[in-house]
Amino acid sequence: MIDLKGRHFLSTLDFSVEEIRSIVDLALRMKGDQTMGMLPGRVFGMIFFNPSVRTRVSSESAMARMGGHAIALHPGRDTWNFEHREGIVMDGNTQEHVKELAPVLSSMCDAVGIRKSELVTTGLSKAEVTTSYDDLKQDAFIHAFAKHSRKPVVNLESNSSHPLQGLADMAAMVEKLDGPPKGKKYVLTWAYHPKPLPVATPHSQLLAAADLGMDVTILRPDGWDLAPEMVEAARGRTESQGGSLTVTADQEAAYSGADVVCAKAWGSLDHYGRFDEESAAKDAIRADWTVDEAKMARTNDALFMHCLPVRRGIVVTDGVIDSRNSIVTTEAENRLWTVAALLQCLIAG
Amino acid sequence: MIDLKGRHFLSTLDFSVEEIRSIVDLALRMKGDQTMGMLPGRVFGMIFFNPSVRTRVSSESAMARMGGHAIALHPGRDTWNFEHREGIVMDGNTQEHVKELAPVLSSMCDAVGIRKSELVTTGLSKAEVTTSYDDLKQDAFIHAFAKHSRKPVVNLESNSSHPLQGLADMAAMVEKLDGPPKGKKYVLTWAYHPKPLPVATPHSQLLAAADLGMDVTILRPDGWDLAPEMVEAARGRTESQGGSLTVTADQEAAYSGADVVCAKAWGSLDHYGRFDEESAAKDAIRADWTVDEAKMARTNDALFMHCLPVRRGIVVTDGVIDSRNSIVTTEAENRLWTVAALLQCLIAG
Amino acid sequence: MIDLKGRHFLSTLDFSVEEIRSIVDLALRMKGDQTMGMLPGRVFGMIFFNPSVRTRVSSESAMARMGGHAIALHPGRDTWNFEHREGIVMDGNTQEHVKELAPVLSSMCDAVGIRKSELVTTGLSKAEVTTSYDDLKQDAFIHAFAKHSRKPVVNLESNSSHPLQGLADMAAMVEKLDGPPKGKKYVLTWAYHPKPLPVATPHSQLLAAADLGMDVTILRPDGWDLAPEMVEAARGRTESQGGSLTVTADQEAAYSGADVVCAKAWGSLDHYGRFDEESAAKDAIRADWTVDEAKMARTNDALFMHCLPVRRGIVVTDGVIDSRNSIVTTEAENRLWTVAALLQCLIAG
Repeated sequence: MIDLKGRHFLSTLDFSVEEIRSIVDLALRMKGDQTMGMLPGRVFGMIFFNPSVRTRVSSESAMARMGGHAIALHPGRDTWNFEHREGIVMDGNTQEHVKELAPVLSSMCDAVGIRKSELVTTGLSKAEVTTSYDDLKQDAFIHAFAKHSRKPVVNLESNSSHPLQGLADMAAMVEKLDGPPKGKKYVLTWAYHPKPLPVATPHSQLLAAADLGMDVTILRPDGWDLAPEMVEAARGRTESQGGSLTVTADQEAAYSGADVVCAKAWGSLDHYGRFDEESAAKDAIRADWTVDEAKMARTNDALFMHCLPVRRGIVVTDGVIDSRNSIVTTEAENRLWTVAALLQCLIAG
Repeated sequence: MIDLKGRHFLSTLDFSVEEIRSIVDLALRMKGDQTMGMLPGRVFGMIFFNPSVRTRVSSESAMARMGGHAIALHPGRDTWNFEHREGIVMDGNTQEHVKELAPVLSSMCDAVGIRKSELVTTGLSKAEVTTSYDDLKQDAFIHAFAKHSRKPVVNLESNSSHPLQGLADMAAMVEKLDGPPKGKKYVLTWAYHPKPLPVATPHSQLLAAADLGMDVTILRPDGWDLAPEMVEAARGRTESQGGSLTVTADQEAAYSGADVVCAKAWGSLDHYGRFDEESAAKDAIRADWTVDEAKMARTNDALFMHCLPVRRGIVVTDGVIDSRNSIVTTEAENRLWTVAALLQCLIAG
Repeated sequence: MIDLKGRHFLSTLDFSVEEIRSIVDLALRMKGDQTMGMLPGRVFGMIFFNPSVRTRVSSESAMARMGGHAIALHPGRDTWNFEHREGIVMDGNTQEHVKELAPVLSSMCDAVGIRKSELVTTGLSKAEVTTSYDDLKQDAFIHAFAKHSRKPVVNLESNSSHPLQGLADMAAMVEKLDGPPKGKKYVLTWAYHPKPLPVATPHSQLLAAADLGMDVTILRPDGWDLAPEMVEAARGRTESQGGSLTVTADQEAAYSGADVVCAKAWGSLDHYGRFDEESAAKDAIRADWTVDEAKMARTNDALFMHCLPVRRGIVVTDGVIDSRNSIVTTEAENRLWTVAALLQCLIAG
């Protein structure tokens, strides 16, 4: 067993392919036995700057099943607001610096999770973003917290990545594909969405397929590229495993022969923060990018994947998501087993 | 012991009188021993669309005492909004369909509870209802969730019923009445309230008395009938046990000889959603419907019941609710033991 | 061991110096062993009218580590609003009286904690206070709750005091001072803050130093006296232990020879509720009251203390709070061990 005790889990890129695979393998063994490790009396503190369903319930359920406990904090609602900038005079809207918050929470908890994304909102409300993606991708708060934390810090979704979703997607493909994922064709397809959505999840889904050594195709309209550093990192990871990576706008070629179609809406980094511009460009192509039965018919009987929540009738037709090839609930169910395996590794070793 | 493992608990009407009585009996045995069953590492997920005190604390405390855990989610606040309609194009304010939510949550939890009432609000704020009671009583969300759930679903209060309150009221009457409840006179009296309140709780209180075979009187002003299908169901249940059911507006006759007076404010189904109309009609009779010492003096030394929260000085006088005949805190205390018994039956069998 | 089972913990003044010291000693023994007592299946209900980080996480973590559970309720958000006044006709914004709430919650929980302060807010929003401090210091809600509760009630911060912070500060001084605290010089210094802050925490910090028999100096500008009854109580407690108490506006004299400098912003009782008046008076002296390196240089190599959260650059310079003499994270860490010791004493004895 690889020893990950005490490590931060901020991005799968901080871990070797072998380490990531060992977490996923542990999760699938736990799921097979329907039993988890034990973390009696251990506490996972979670700070949610954004709403959550799967991440919170899977983490809280995993800790409870292992005899421990998870605490969910919601800054600005049941707590005050937090500061992470260095050398600042705090006479504004923030009340506590991460230099205090991190050592304090990490002295009361055995690990701390943080969700902080500028684009995850409730309902139809759009985020207000006044800075660039190049700034936001630094994920300054979570990194500052990790720097001052005495215990492992877990990324529950940041601006740049959502590595817990990556683990669950990996586990779902290992479990559901017919044979080893290596060399199989994985298509990550962009989809329309009424709101500008973050790129964090598609980044981590991309890295998940790459770590499995798949032949990865990123299918997106021109102007909706993922962050180049993430695409290049994924290319390096999959090529190291014998896989490949292609970026295209050609839907017919992409679907052809696919073993997995993973749909995800994401926002345009070219228009980041200027959402009205993006909407105009996006509305023109909305109808072309829904995953439907005709497109799936071109594939090699591909599995359909989505991280959830999904807007039915927009991202995917009912026919596809309700088909026997859809493994969206397996992905979500695996959130429970992968976070349990991860917390076991980080807290107990 | 009757086996209820894996059953949904949406309405007491889905269970036989014998089954309901067995849950109440188990609860009272647990209370007598001051010990509960064990559900170690088991998780009860709860979705609260509305505020809660008793329901949340009793469920969360019961799960903790049995070695398990309960999770409270608040849609639109710490989660996004949910959809339940079939075949819809989700380009509006809802972000996740119950077709995904139900299998996902039920794969991470051992049972899921849902509170979803259009009329339960905080403070003096009135609900906005744009549809009829005949539509709302379908409780479409909770039934859609149950259809797609892999684990038992528990009604934590819907538009049509609040069966957990029914169980607690039954337990309180079995415990506190002098002798068996069968054949004793139970009066469910309407009370004034500044807001339009749901009919869910009085429906379940009515069914609780019916399942005990009591002589049930529904005392309400003209225009404030409970839903006819619920009244008829209650009539059938109590008559099957040798009881009876009467509906009247005659307070003097109703209080006369009563063994139990259960007060509850509820809204007029005739004015459902047109709350200004209801207020005008209601304000005129406000003073006549408070439960006071003079009315209680006409009874057979009746127990006073209320589900709580109660507006003192409006629904009931301090003198009555603070009297030795008041069992309102027993009812509430029994919420803990009855939900513990129910969860034990549904999850562990 | 002193038996505190079943006692309310509303103010340290309700306990003898010996009793308070025994709780702190137990906490430090637990911390030394890095192990807590056991409260399996026991439940601590917490009502937070105000936001919280340390209090909630320390209590919830302590209960989880001891095998129990803590529940956090947030009135007006996930619950409705509560009433505590006697004899009131409840036709306004409050929906449940403490006469019901207290027996109900205390029948479902083994202890109940309450945070209710009129001045603790989120971000820069200022509280609206329409009454005097003499009225608010009665802490009517928490006392009414305690009167009707069947189980111990714990003050999680009220208008008059924050005794959990007092315990943690005592533990930090016992742990970190070089030798016994008795007779050492403790300076509680006022600091500027953009909002009017409560006096609860400085009251409890003052009492903590007094119970250790320290030579206590309250350093504050004219017009920012703490409540006279608290100052006199502290004087009595410290003199009974051989200590002394001084109130001054002379910073140079106060810092001179200090062994501990505890900084805290608090509002002026003279201007209570008239916050614009206070701001004008306060802004003029803002720059003079920051704890900085020059002031600390006058001390006897004093420890720097603050209850957190702290506004850096306003209350204290980065240089002081980041120095080796700063024990602010020890104070916070001790919140975990002191609340664990307290709950062990109150619930299990």
